[in-house]
Formats: sequence, C-alpha cells, structure tokens
Amino acid sequence: MSERVVLCYGDSNTYGSIPGGGDRFPRDMRWPGVLAAQLGDDWHVIEEGLGGRTTVFDDPILPDRNGRTYLRPCLLSHQPLDLVVIFLGTNDLKARFAASAADIAGGVAVLTEIALAVAPKVLVLGLPELVSYTDVDGFHLDAAGHRTIGEAVGQRIAAMF
Amino acid sequence: MSERVVLCYGDSNTYGSIPGGGDRFPRDMRWPGVLAAQLGDDWHVIEEGLGGRTTVFDDPILPDRNGRTYLRPCLLSHQPLDLVVIFLGTNDLKARFAASAADIAGGVAVLTEIALAVAPKVLVLGLPELVSYTDVDGFHLDAAGHRTIGEAVGQRIAAMF
Amino acid sequence: MSERVVLCYGDSNTYGSIPGGGDRFPRDMRWPGVLAAQLGDDWHVIEEGLGGRTTVFDDPILPDRNGRTYLRPCLLSHQPLDLVVIFLGTNDLKARFAASAADIAGGVAVLTEIALAVAPKVLVLGLPELVSYTDVDGFHLDAAGHRTIGEAVGQRIAAMF
Amino acid sequence: MSERVVLCYGDSNTYGSIPGGGDRFPRDMRWPGVLAAQLGDDWHVIEEGLGGRTTVFDDPILPDRNGRTYLRPCLLSHQPLDLVVIFLGTNDLKARFAASAADIAGGVAVLTEIALAVAPKVLVLGLPELVSYTDVDGFHLDAAGHRTIGEAVGQRIAAMF
Amino acid sequence: MSERVVLCYGDSNTYGSIPGGGDRFPRDMRWPGVLAAQLGDDWHVIEEGLGGRTTVFDDPILPDRNGRTYLRPCLLSHQPLDLVVIFLGTNDLKARFAASAADIAGGVAVLTEIALAVAPKVLVLGLPELVSYTDVDGFHLDAAGHRTIGEAVGQRIAAMF
Amino acid sequence: MSERVVLCYGDSNTYGSIPGGGDRFPRDMRWPGVLAAQLGDDWHVIEEGLGGRTTVFDDPILPDRNGRTYLRPCLLSHQPLDLVVIFLGTNDLKARFAASAADIAGGVAVLTEIALAVAPKVLVLGLPELVSYTDVDGFHLDAAGHRTIGEAVGQRIAAMF
Repeated sequence: MSERVVLCYGDSNTYGSIPGGGDRFPRDMRWPGVLAAQLGDDWHVIEEGLGGRTTVFDDPILPDRNGRTYLRPCLLSHQPLDLVVIFLGTNDLKARFAASAADIAGGVAVLTEIALAVAPKVLVLGLPELVSYTDVDGFHLDAAGHRTIGEAVGQRIAAMF
Repeated sequence: MSERVVLCYGDSNTYGSIPGGGDRFPRDMRWPGVLAAQLGDDWHVIEEGLGGRTTVFDDPILPDRNGRTYLRPCLLSHQPLDLVVIFLGTNDLKARFAASAADIAGGVAVLTEIALAVAPKVLVLGLPELVSYTDVDGFHLDAAGHRTIGEAVGQRIAAMF
Repeated sequence: MSERVVLCYGDSNTYGSIPGGGDRFPRDMRWPGVLAAQLGDDWHVIEEGLGGRTTVFDDPILPDRNGRTYLRPCLLSHQPLDLVVIFLGTNDLKARFAASAADIAGGVAVLTEIALAVAPKVLVLGLPELVSYTDVDGFHLDAAGHRTIGEAVGQRIAAMF
Repeated sequence: MSERVVLCYGDSNTYGSIPGGGDRFPRDMRWPGVLAAQLGDDWHVIEEGLGGRTTVFDDPILPDRNGRTYLRPCLLSHQPLDLVVIFLGTNDLKARFAASAADIAGGVAVLTEIALAVAPKVLVLGLPELVSYTDVDGFHLDAAGHRTIGEAVGQRIAAMF
Repeated sequence: MSERVVLCYGDSNTYGSIPGGGDRFPRDMRWPGVLAAQLGDDWHVIEEGLGGRTTVFDDPILPDRNGRTYLRPCLLSHQPLDLVVIFLGTNDLKARFAASAADIAGGVAVLTEIALAVAPKVLVLGLPELVSYTDVDGFHLDAAGHRTIGEAVGQRIAAMF
Repeated sequence: MSERVVLCYGDSNTYGSIPGGGDRFPRDMRWPGVLAAQLGDDWHVIEEGLGGRTTVFDDPILPDRNGRTYLRPCLLSHQPLDLVVIFLGTNDLKARFAASAADIAGGVAVLTEIALAVAPKVLVLGLPELVSYTDVDGFHLDAAGHRTIGEAVGQRIAAMF
C-alpha cells in the first residue's frame, strides 16, 4: 500500500507554542508528532501550524495570518492528500474581528469547502470536547493536551480509513 | 545535537512533477527526498514546491502562485529553521510577466531577504549549473535530475554546517 | 422620447429571495418587476440584487458582496442611466462588520457619490418607511412587500421625471 | 415552460460602442438586442458589456475592467441562468498585459470555469469566425456586425436548447 | 553641522483641523510649525497629518486612511530622517474597527517598527499626558493645544539629540 | 496675500539621487529647493520624490512605488494646494511593465485627474524638453539639471499665477 498523507492545518496549538513563552515543543511532543508516531510508517504527517492564524480574517496588526489565503496554495503544494485536519478558530475570538460564534463556524466552513476541493476528507477539531487548556495562559495546550489531541485524532483516522 | 531543519522552497521541480504529465514522483525520488536520505536523521527536510510558483509575480491566470506572498507565513509556520533553499525563477519566464533576467534575479533577491529575516542561511539554486532538463518538455527534471540536485544540495549543506 | 433607464441596486430584497428559502420570486413579482410594469415601455429597468451585499464592507465569510467594489463597473456597463435606486444596508448589520447606524449611512453616502458620478439622479430606499418585513425570517420581503416597494418607487419616479 | 435566461458577458463590442465615438448603439441594434428579438419571449437576455474589459487582467490605467473580478457577483446576481455567452479577449491584446494568444485563451478558460460553477452552459464567442471588424477603428463592430453576431448566437442557442 | 530632519506623522490633529470645521490652522499655529520655530534652522520639519488616518486599519467608508500602507513610501521619500514622531490612535476608536486599547497600542507598535527600519529614532505621542482636547468636538486640539504639543515635542527632541 | 503651496510629485529625479550612487543632493541643490529659492517666501514647496516611483504600476520587485496609490492621501495631507507638479514616467520604462509610450501618457493622465480633484492646477514635466540626462547612468539629473528644472518650473509658475 502506498503512503497516505495528512495535513494538520492550525494555529499556535498546532505549531506547538509552549504556554507562557514563544518557544516550541519538540516535534515528537507536538500533536502532529504524537499523531505521526501513532499512525506509523503508512502515513506522512505534514505540520502547518502558525501562531495567530485565523480562519478567514485578515489581521491588521499581525500580517500573514489569514487561514483562507494560505490554505489553497498549501493544499496544492502537498497534494495528493488523503486527509486535512483543521484546528482553527481560537484567534477569531480577538475583539478586533467582532466575530460571533456563527461567524467562526462560518469561517471553518469556508476552509472546509476549500480543502474538500483538493482532498477527499476533512476532519475539523473542536477542542473543548477533547482537552482543557493549560492554566498558564488559558488558551495554549500543554504537553498532556498535545498527547491527548494527537491520540484522539489518530483514533479517529483509524476509524475513517 | 538537536535536529536541524531545512525548508525547500520551489516550483514544480521541487514538487516533483513527472515530465509530460501531472503526476508526482514518489517522495524518495524527489530532490528533497534524495536530500533527506543523504542528510540522515540529524536533519528534518520540509518540502514546499508548487507548480507554477513565481518569485514575486501574481499570475492572473493561475492564482496562488506568487512566491513572495506565501513565503513569510510558510517560514513562520516552520521556524526555527537552519536553512532555506530557494529554487525558483523558471515560471517568471512566462511572456505575461515580461520579466528580464535582471528582474528574475531581483525577484530571487526579494525572497532571499524575506527568508533571511527568519532563517540564518539561504541557499539559492541556479539550475543550469547542475543539470540539463529533460527532453520531454524542456523544463522539468527527470528522476536523474532530482538525484543530481538532491545530492549536490546535500554536499553543499555538509560544507555549510 | 427615447427610452429611460433605471438601475435597481440592492441585496436579497432586490434579488427577490423568497423568505425562508433560497428560491427567487418570479421576475414580475420582484419589486423591480413591479416597477417595470408600472413605468411601462418608456423605461428600461435593470435588476442588480445580490444576497448578502453590503454597502462598502468586505465580508470575509461571503466573498464578492462588497457593494462598493461592484458598483462602478456595473454603472459603466449600463450607462447611460437616468436613475439609480440604492436599497442596501441590512447586511451591514451583521456583527462582524461592527457598523454603527452612522457607519451604514456613511456607506450609503459613499455609494451615492459613486453613482452620481455616472447617473444624474439617485434614489435611496430606507425600507422601514415603506413596509414591514415578513414574519418568516424578519428581514426578507414577502410578495406584498415587493408590490408595495415597486409601486412606491414608481410613484416617486413619476414625480421625479 | 418557464422563462430562460442568458447573460451576455463582454467588452465594448457587447456594450455596443459606435465605432469612432463613445456613443452606444440603441438597445435593439446591439447584438444582445438582436438576440433577444430572435429568441422571443421565452428568453430573458441580460446585457453585461463594459468597454475595456479584459478576461483576467487588472488594467492599471483603466480601473474596474478585470473580467474575472466582476464575473462571479454578476452571475450570482442574475442566477438562475441557463446560459452565459462570453465574448472577451480583444482588450487583452494591449501591450501592457504582455499576453500571448495562449494567455488569452487561458483567461477565457478561467472565466468559463467560474461561469460553469453557476450556469449549466457557456458559449464562448471567437469573433473572427463570424464577422470582420469595421474599418473605422479596426476592432469595433458596426451595426451589420452586431446583427450577424446576434443572429449567429441565436441560431447556436436554438441548437443547444 | 548638517541639517536634521524630523517627520511628524499623524491624523487631523497633526493636519491642524480647526475644531468644529473643516478648515486648517495656519502653518505656524499647527504643532509641527510650533516645533519648527522652536527647533530653529538646524532642523527641517516635515508635516504628514491626514484627517481620519488610523494606525493600521483600512477604513471602508473613508479610503486612503490606513497609516501603515502610507508610512513606508513616506519614510523612503523623506529619508534620511533623524526622527519620526508618531501621533496616531484616535481614529482607531471608531466603532467599526472594534479595536481594543491593546489593539491600538499594537497598531502603534507596528508603525514604530516600520519607522525604525528607516529612521534611527521614533517618538510616540500619547496625547492625554499633554493636553486636554477642545470642548468644541471633544477630540480636536485648539490653538493652545497645538502650542503645548509643539513645545513639549521640542523639549523632548532637545533632550534626545 | 496668504502663502501659496506647491507639491512636487516625482521619482528619484525629484528625490535628488546623486547619479551613480544612492546618496541625495542637499535640499537647496534639488530642483524643488531651487524652485523654493526662486519663488521666495510667498510659496511653500513640498518635496515628494521617491526613487523607483511609477505613474500607476505596482512593481513586484520594488514595493510601495505605485504613484497612484500614494497620490490621493498625499494630496489630502498637504491641502489646500495651489499647484501640483508631476514629474514621473521614467520608471514605467522598465521592461516588466511592458508599457508603451501611450500607456505612460495614460498613467500621467490618471495622476493628473486625481490631482485636479484636490488642487486647482497641475503642471506635468516632460523632461526631454528641458535638459539632457547625466552621462553617469543615463537617466539621473546632475546638479546642473536640477538647477535648470527648478528655474524652468519657477518661470512657468510665475506665468501661471
């Protein structure tokens, strides 16, 4: 069987920012790394996490964070893809986007439609079902959170393919 | 020693398009794959090749191909980086960009400056020194070309680090 | 006397969305159609209603809805024009635009200025003076509302020309 | 049978510019008008011709002429559509676009793909097969040219539906 | 000693709008003029104040007011510069930007970083420390306010150079 | 009589680049400075010259050089203006803009129209009538060229006002 490919598309919680600091967890502690270990050699896992990334909003203060603008060339660069995991929405909560919960869901829907034009399946992560955020800053995952997410995504993928 | 990271930023010749068709060479035959094999476990090699990508030009016919627009979020998503390899310019030759050789060099210089704001080193590939293109379509690498490039870049990296 | 031309520029209430569904009222039930029937053969009525259209805001979730971007080429395509009727503002109320009543009025003023650079007269519809919205969804016109608007605009035009 | 709708999307030759001057032929002499007369009451014909419109190029000297930017909101505003007729490409020949014949064909292909996402059929007009341009300025249709185009499109539509 | 150059970059309070009207205070009454008089012939003072200018926000109602877009070409046009004084933020308070105090500070930080890439020093004015606004409209400086600002900036510059 | 104001809007030849190097002539040797000396205290002369500035073209290699984007906020910042002198076009000759002589004239016409919406008079400089360029690089003015331009513009202004 040929290698399968999954793209992990997200923000600082996919990048693996260490809560309370700018540093990054090592590759094998970040949830895409946990996922890669769990999936084994049959899968190639691509990390695409950028701190501050929104679903579809241009951020006038932090440029280059619009998740829609970047997604299509990113998909085309990494195709053929078997799965795209989208884990975004937290940064949309910033006051300057004035986004309602429905707007954020709408933004994720826009990304999902773009992804489905290139990849056959999309998995959207809604974090609250999975883990509680770290106490350090209230919205970043700690090492245990990454492990939980990586394993949960791995189980879901095992059930999907 | 901790893992080192290199980003391979290019067009269809980094994506690994098979000459004469839309398909993609397997991961280990594409030059970033050849490079990864040569560098071994000390290095993590990130592929970022997109067919039609230019240095700095918006393509009105093929959207999402401007190499400048995409580069900065791509660097930020994959940092910390030890090296960026830039292998672009061929698509700038399309008549609709009206680009002179100096313009293409200028475009690569723009990308180099952006990359050096995030990564400590940049390696720019000028292909003609390395390989001749395939006969099939005159501008795509065949498997031998990928091997030559991957090995040459590997040797250069060995000398740089 | 040569034919006169009026452009009806609006959102879903000019498009004629049927409340509670995506379908469209037939041409003669939409207010521009009611207007055309009332004005008779001396006038040519052009419909330009797009669901979700704002006055001047880019909608990151629903693209192509900025009423300002589209207005100038639309005017130039249909000139010479005797009148532009602008019936916009409802979609500006979405939370993500964070627009005050003064902002919406400002958006309409921007459109009016653009229209007056091409057409000699502009008529701005402020709906609440004319009809109450349907009960189905609270912001779409029903068939009676379209009839009321079309006839009211027709009477106003008769008084203007 | 309910009314069918065709959108005529083009440049000055769809607008109906009189060769050698800025004026516009009357509605019934422009090719969409000729077409409407020929198709009769079963069809509604929408004119969308703008002088200087390109297929996909932004014109830095003449703003608002990019045929791609305008097409999608135009389609959405006039849907449901049975047919889109695209008659563009002449303005792409301006030197500042540096467009090859293949580029212009590529631009038309982009528009066709956008149109087919909304309408079931697209008819692309390649003028040279149909008429010779007027002697006055070499690239505008005279009244006879409009009649020829309108009738030819009408016959093609009769064969398509 | 060669002439030193300071760029005063701001909004209507640098432009010198007279409170309650659209007119402009004369050059020597505006704070950059007061500053020029105080600094004397050793300095060249450049005024760059535009009513409605924001730090980094595009204003959909009032175009051309984004302070970030304009800043870099403005700096390059007036270099070499010894100092940039940034006096912006008031217009960011408009409801349609939905900007928090932290966002406005973030916007000023973006401008400061851009300025420091061209000029060696930046001075950011936070108005409330200096003057109370006029009673006429609550956010425009009167003549006394301009004098206070100009003199305070002059003293700060004297201490910096 | 109150002070009159003239804005000098141009490229490196208004900035005063010294031929063969990146440095800038001193203020009194640049043509706007020559002009200021000639016009005396009745006039305030504003310099706005940026190397690489085009009339209306975005330069993908050298950002922030589009003369149209910058002009309107620049005019609004410096109004009320009695005159705008436009001295642009040389950079449009770069191959990547593919601009014909008519295109460059068209670009200047676009700028003139923008300027006339704010200022009552515009003076367009066509350099070849005035001076020959320096031998050093073939397109930059030397000190004598600046003097010739400044004096010629001064005489023209004397005749206009």
